[in-house]
Amino acid sequence: MRSQASVAELGEFGLIGRVASMLATPPSPGLVPGLKVGIGDDAAVWAPTPGTWSVITTDALIEDVHFRLRTTSWYDLGWKSLAVNLSDVAAMGATPRYAVVSLGLSGRVPVAAIDEFCRGMADLAAQYDTAIVGGDTVEAPCTVISVAVVGETLPASPGEPPPLLRRSAGRVGDLVAVTGELGASAGGLRLLEAAGAPPAAAAAAADVLLAAHRRPIPRVAEAAVLLAHGVRCALDLSDGLLGDAQRLAEASGVGVVLEAARVPIAPALQALFPAEALELALGGGEDYELLCAGPPAVLDAAAAALAARGGPALTVVGRLVPPPATGPGVQVVDAQGAPLPLRGGYAHFGG
Amino acid sequence: MRSQASVAELGEFGLIGRVASMLATPPSPGLVPGLKVGIGDDAAVWAPTPGTWSVITTDALIEDVHFRLRTTSWYDLGWKSLAVNLSDVAAMGATPRYAVVSLGLSGRVPVAAIDEFCRGMADLAAQYDTAIVGGDTVEAPCTVISVAVVGETLPASPGEPPPLLRRSAGRVGDLVAVTGELGASAGGLRLLEAAGAPPAAAAAAADVLLAAHRRPIPRVAEAAVLLAHGVRCALDLSDGLLGDAQRLAEASGVGVVLEAARVPIAPALQALFPAEALELALGGGEDYELLCAGPPAVLDAAAAALAARGGPALTVVGRLVPPPATGPGVQVVDAQGAPLPLRGGYAHFGG
Repeated sequence: MRSQASVAELGEFGLIGRVASMLATPPSPGLVPGLKVGIGDDAAVWAPTPGTWSVITTDALIEDVHFRLRTTSWYDLGWKSLAVNLSDVAAMGATPRYAVVSLGLSGRVPVAAIDEFCRGMADLAAQYDTAIVGGDTVEAPCTVISVAVVGETLPASPGEPPPLLRRSAGRVGDLVAVTGELGASAGGLRLLEAAGAPPAAAAAAADVLLAAHRRPIPRVAEAAVLLAHGVRCALDLSDGLLGDAQRLAEASGVGVVLEAARVPIAPALQALFPAEALELALGGGEDYELLCAGPPAVLDAAAAALAARGGPALTVVGRLVPPPATGPGVQVVDAQGAPLPLRGGYAHFGG
Repeated sequence: MRSQASVAELGEFGLIGRVASMLATPPSPGLVPGLKVGIGDDAAVWAPTPGTWSVITTDALIEDVHFRLRTTSWYDLGWKSLAVNLSDVAAMGATPRYAVVSLGLSGRVPVAAIDEFCRGMADLAAQYDTAIVGGDTVEAPCTVISVAVVGETLPASPGEPPPLLRRSAGRVGDLVAVTGELGASAGGLRLLEAAGAPPAAAAAAADVLLAAHRRPIPRVAEAAVLLAHGVRCALDLSDGLLGDAQRLAEASGVGVVLEAARVPIAPALQALFPAEALELALGGGEDYELLCAGPPAVLDAAAAALAARGGPALTVVGRLVPPPATGPGVQVVDAQGAPLPLRGGYAHFGG
């Protein structure tokens, strides 16, 4: 079937066959350790690695809520809808292994678009050794992508449970840190939603912001480094530093004090949106970096290990304090320790 | 918050809290063997039972494609969106254990509707000892529900892999059988789509058909009985006997001959739609019974065991034959063995 055809012309079973063949990477269960039954039966089957625990997460992307087809390529959509799930597995300190994909599509979608979607998702899956093992394709009035990913923890030490990164494991006195730089994805979204193109001199910075928004990088290896150095508290930054720090505060029963001057603002964001850079780095979502907490010596060692890898840095941005009796669990302070008034992260339904 | 409020008034985090507290049944990981982290972190975590394999499946329901809110209660929607996934786990011969739920909603949906949805899903989950361990709530232009379920196989015998029900395990000479009765769900859908109410004398039959359509029963225990008696080939009837028999034929590399006179048509369907009952039993989808194949002695023993349980019967409806050189892999014949021309199962996108 020519790829200019629409999904309606392909039909459901044609679509399943096409999607399955493009996403089943590697194509044979025998090539994925542990995989016993891949795509094509009622469910996929695998043998968990002995001595590990399994994790599962799910996240959905909805057209005109999470993305607009006008400003998002189908390749990037495939990439991102898997990436946000891999990021949640990473944020538990686990390694992604298996994914299932529900794909809701209008019959008018060109088959070529589905091919691009599958390529984006398969490329990311291959980079992270994640096997796409099943899914569902359904007709829908708008594009809807729901992905669930199963991962495995790192192996347990003798006599111990396997190590995990929990939101609830923060303790008063811990320092709070983030991987990488913040706000680039929010800057990319702002560029996409703006009417005109950025000035030509800013094209390189704009590309950085757009790439951060379109193809977030799940911090799987970085989470393993944090765990290996004794970090036990982390979550991923999906809704913005302020909103996600609030989640950490609630889950751990602590308060969080963030120092505005220490927030690692993405340089491209600073270059293109200097007036709003701090606000976007604090409140903008979808960075998919890790927010973690741990004793100073633990974070020092983890930061040194991450620096030695040459990947994203670990930057201390604040500390955990006793929970405040009233008011928000997260405070942002300036270099002198004076509170700054700021708005929170992204919430659906205007909540 | 009063339940007359809308989702927009509740806000995303209010919605997450409400859904999580209603779906987390039982509420504490400590009460579910193997569950280590439930709802509320980046992902749920469990310890697979040693000596078993895991299975995963996903299925989505989209408003005005799979259901209409005009004719579907939110309770039934919660029930059914989990049930269709449990049915896929059953069709592998596995036991459902953990589920994650993506819920896309318009901000106008009343909170009371979400409560009903959660009650329907939680009631079914409790019946099947399935823990809902995570999910995602997002704004969407129409109601979208995507569920993924992880299950575990029955334990392996020493030196053997765990037993599975595979679509590909059919062999020429096997008999083909179905659990329960067919066509009731398709009859229920026909009633829902019809303009008027059924005649008062037919109210009881109509209730049977509507219940079959709204609250399908996953055949988890029945699948285990099939496995225990040596059946190794099965799938669930989601798209209709003809369509799903075609899948078995393709996966097993065989042909299927179905005898129309042996198809167990639901009595209520026969009563309300006598002229179309056979067509609906053959081509109508969403029965969620099991279609299986096995040697005659194996199916005899399985049928006797199912009869002894007092649950749905196992009825032989045909046999597996060498794959035809041309033409469809599934043939329907009359009592004299003469082919009957009939239409196929349900496909999305008009395929």
